[in-house]
Amino acid sequence: MMSAMKKSLGAKTLVYPTPVFVVGTYDKEGKPNVLTASWGGICCSQPPCVAVSLRKATFTHGNILARKAFTISIPSEEHVRQADYFGLVSGRSVDKFAATKLTPVRSELVDAPYVKEFLLVVECKLAHVIELGLHTQFVGEVMDVKAEDSVMAKGGLLDITRVKPLVFAPDTQAYYGIGKFLGQAFSVGHGI
Amino acid sequence: MMSAMKKSLGAKTLVYPTPVFVVGTYDKEGKPNVLTASWGGICCSQPPCVAVSLRKATFTHGNILARKAFTISIPSEEHVRQADYFGLVSGRSVDKFAATKLTPVRSELVDAPYVKEFLLVVECKLAHVIELGLHTQFVGEVMDVKAEDSVMAKGGLLDITRVKPLVFAPDTQAYYGIGKFLGQAFSVGHGI
Repeated sequence: MMSAMKKSLGAKTLVYPTPVFVVGTYDKEGKPNVLTASWGGICCSQPPCVAVSLRKATFTHGNILARKAFTISIPSEEHVRQADYFGLVSGRSVDKFAATKLTPVRSELVDAPYVKEFLLVVECKLAHVIELGLHTQFVGEVMDVKAEDSVMAKGGLLDITRVKPLVFAPDTQAYYGIGKFLGQAFSVGHGI
Repeated sequence: MMSAMKKSLGAKTLVYPTPVFVVGTYDKEGKPNVLTASWGGICCSQPPCVAVSLRKATFTHGNILARKAFTISIPSEEHVRQADYFGLVSGRSVDKFAATKLTPVRSELVDAPYVKEFLLVVECKLAHVIELGLHTQFVGEVMDVKAEDSVMAKGGLLDITRVKPLVFAPDTQAYYGIGKFLGQAFSVGHGI
């Protein structure tokens, strides 16, 4: 049997790639805050929904429950230090926007701020709260996606190579960029 | 106000990066099947859980409900055509393992098969089923992660640059590789 050839690493949170989501919220007094999270992803096409999981201890956890909304701002390669900082300190004690000289923009659609300088943002209305254990999963219904003109490709589609999003690698806990184009989906598999 | 500078793209499923998960299941008769999905991600650290969302119309949807288990095999760059193929055809009509000459391995921990030739696999026991709309979100508790020795870095950590996982870019529907190292998490943000 060949099944014993792979090495067991144990029960851990290890898949590739995981995203780097900067989650924007307001607290009860209306102070904008951001937190970086890598446990999340798209979870439904209709209605369009994105999930992000947070520990109950985070400031953002309470903010989402209070405001029923959050945004996801996608950091680019040039923002790796700021994105990491957003995961190092708590909004309870620090104004992370002031510390990084980034600008909160009030969403016109949901009760949450996003990061003006980031190239791609997603505005979400809280749709489901799912207790999974250490983390609570917040499912947000996407109300709008907004992007800078500079990252649009032809045909009005968004070009990932212009956004230059971050990838987080669990286990080694490192950030990577997006690499080379490997093929068109729903296409390169034809002919097998 | 600067908030109007970003262009609205509408309510859509568009964040970066999204993963390329090859979801392995058995059907009622014990036939192994695989399906490619990009709506998913890690959703809890304790217990370690991974989420994957599937349309009810898929063969895999019924398989997971019947067997209460699934695996996620992570395709590498060299498997981009096979991974795409797994999303193009249905296991109802095709034996996808036979068609791609890849090998199903029966998990010893959960009632599902994984892809022997893929370098990283995650074995999951079904923990939650959450109806979100067009998609059902399956939350699997990770029972084990297995990897080939060839992708281990020093200290027993898994090296993403050896796994070479795929990234799926929604909107342009294209596959990309992992790019350059950008920094250590929980580290590069210090000093801001």
